Amino acid sequence: MAKTPETEHPVKAFGWAARDTSGVFSPFKFSRRATGELDVQFKVLYCGVCHSDLHMSKNEWGMTQYPVVPGHEIVGVVTEVGSKVEKVKVGDKVGVGCLVGSCRSCDMCSQDLENYCSNQTLTYSATFTDGTITYGGYSDVMVADEHFIVRWPENLPLDAGAPLLCAGITTYSPLRYFGLDKPGVHVGIVGLGGLGHVAVKFAKAFGAKVTVISTSDNKKKEAMEKLGADAFLNSRDPEQMQAAAGTMNGIIDTVSAVHPVVPLINLVKPHGKVVMVGAPEKPLEFSTFPLIVGRKTLSGSCIGGLKETQEMIDFAAKHNILADVEVIPIDYVNTAMARLLKADVKYRFVIDIGSSLKSA
Amino acid sequence: MAKTPETEHPVKAFGWAARDTSGVFSPFKFSRRATGELDVQFKVLYCGVCHSDLHMSKNEWGMTQYPVVPGHEIVGVVTEVGSKVEKVKVGDKVGVGCLVGSCRSCDMCSQDLENYCSNQTLTYSATFTDGTITYGGYSDVMVADEHFIVRWPENLPLDAGAPLLCAGITTYSPLRYFGLDKPGVHVGIVGLGGLGHVAVKFAKAFGAKVTVISTSDNKKKEAMEKLGADAFLNSRDPEQMQAAAGTMNGIIDTVSAVHPVVPLINLVKPHGKVVMVGAPEKPLEFSTFPLIVGRKTLSGSCIGGLKETQEMIDFAAKHNILADVEVIPIDYVNTAMARLLKADVKYRFVIDIGSSLKSA
Repeated sequence: MAKTPETEHPVKAFGWAARDTSGVFSPFKFSRRATGELDVQFKVLYCGVCHSDLHMSKNEWGMTQYPVVPGHEIVGVVTEVGSKVEKVKVGDKVGVGCLVGSCRSCDMCSQDLENYCSNQTLTYSATFTDGTITYGGYSDVMVADEHFIVRWPENLPLDAGAPLLCAGITTYSPLRYFGLDKPGVHVGIVGLGGLGHVAVKFAKAFGAKVTVISTSDNKKKEAMEKLGADAFLNSRDPEQMQAAAGTMNGIIDTVSAVHPVVPLINLVKPHGKVVMVGAPEKPLEFSTFPLIVGRKTLSGSCIGGLKETQEMIDFAAKHNILADVEVIPIDYVNTAMARLLKADVKYRFVIDIGSSLKSA
Repeated sequence: MAKTPETEHPVKAFGWAARDTSGVFSPFKFSRRATGELDVQFKVLYCGVCHSDLHMSKNEWGMTQYPVVPGHEIVGVVTEVGSKVEKVKVGDKVGVGCLVGSCRSCDMCSQDLENYCSNQTLTYSATFTDGTITYGGYSDVMVADEHFIVRWPENLPLDAGAPLLCAGITTYSPLRYFGLDKPGVHVGIVGLGGLGHVAVKFAKAFGAKVTVISTSDNKKKEAMEKLGADAFLNSRDPEQMQAAAGTMNGIIDTVSAVHPVVPLINLVKPHGKVVMVGAPEKPLEFSTFPLIVGRKTLSGSCIGGLKETQEMIDFAAKHNILADVEVIPIDYVNTAMARLLKADVKYRFVIDIGSSLKSA
């Protein structure tokens, strides 16, 4: 008889899980593996609530394995390390993002791009190499191979820093890869949510000129005054869009709802890059003509590799880049999900696991 | 009163023009400007028939100025040069492609990318700086600024070489720009028409592995035996497509009809490039997910700059790359257009202007 989640491993663990497509969370007893020689075990202190946690809790992407314990913006303090671990020691602050495994040998892995490895293991609701299901950071204890552990800078707050492990790297990586990371470039950021607001901060820290593009003028004040954007563009105003045509070097599009893409392609200069980091559930439309006449590109980008994630965290610590967060106790998670669905958060919920998650 | 095309310039010219959206061609008397100090005048010998000539003759892109004398794959022999011309001399063989003008000062022009200049002048049916309409190569005489003249290599045949000036550079440029120009890369070519068959030849000359992707198994034999492709993929066969998933570094998609793009994105590896060089009249659909999970790009590419066009022609001469052509007399052009509409040509019509175009 197969073991239950509570008994399959030796280390007792406790978290909150969704049990079915209702997506409702409730307390869940499970277990973690013993700390292997290359493993790091840590006490979870904070975990960010990513929009994908909401999708996954309701199986909206068709890949959820229930019970699902989400959470891939996880920070905490090391409690045990394996005999061969070199990266961290007991008492160090660490983080784990979206990945806890990859093949480590493919072309992508050998370029430090574990995020594009086709045999990667996601931090939760994925099947680990030992056949068990992975559980994320809405839980009291984590264990992961040191390769997938991020060293946490001393001066970087744990709560407001946690979302950088997904929202941060998801926007940092394309800004870097597509050359939107320097003074003199003009970057558009579409959507001002969990990803978008961090994207603005990174782009500004790189010295770029930043324009926030949104469907709502309500966002203008916060974009410019609070986040420091240089300009604001209402994408529903044809005159504003026309006036800005061909002015940007690239755009990071964080919107995960179906939306028009051609107007964004028109905003970039020849050789401009429109990079999608959101994943609308239905196909989008594009026309080849605006791509062709300026050799423009429409691309996607997915988180980042571990090396780049460490670089991003160190950059954030150096430049004092944090997410704007609302810290919540674990028993608020169902309410938080309902608010997240309405985009009623500025800009990221972070669960205070350390203080609020107590085993019954 | 405005002058007529026949009298507005001093040099008598004769060609065939379409007069309205019927797209029917008939003889047309017009005129060319006197050879300016930087101009090159040449007797047209051959002119390729590009699919865009068909679109333009019927005003299918809404930008045609009638009467339209198409033709932007033009080769001939220099008959007169301006006092400051240094590039060629009387008697030299030359070519003119899709462009006869650009601003020469913008960011794109300063990078030898006149093809992405927003103030470029197309070879036909565009408004020239002097306010007159440009006329293309379905005519006996051409005049163009030497900057837009391509020197023709001695050993490159004029008739089968002419299509390189559009079909050639349109495929050569993205193969180069997107890094699909070397041994070890695997390139897919979608569509085996005027563009596609030349794309196969260039990609093979670069040393790439080439797979032709087509909706029809009828193309397999010619793709592999005649054009030298390494493999053939029927895009309507889900099993073949699945087996080839993630195997290509890039794809040049030459199809100008509406067609599925997502299956092509699935064919490329992480970081793969799908480059569209055809311009379907209606929007295409894409999903962000397959772009995101492999940081793939969907791009467009439009002909090439003059420097690269010369490089391409010299490369073609060195590697003996020619279009497969059916040479026709000018009075066959209406029949040729009807056949082109049915894709009934292997692979490019070229008009023998020198022998067949006689002023009445």
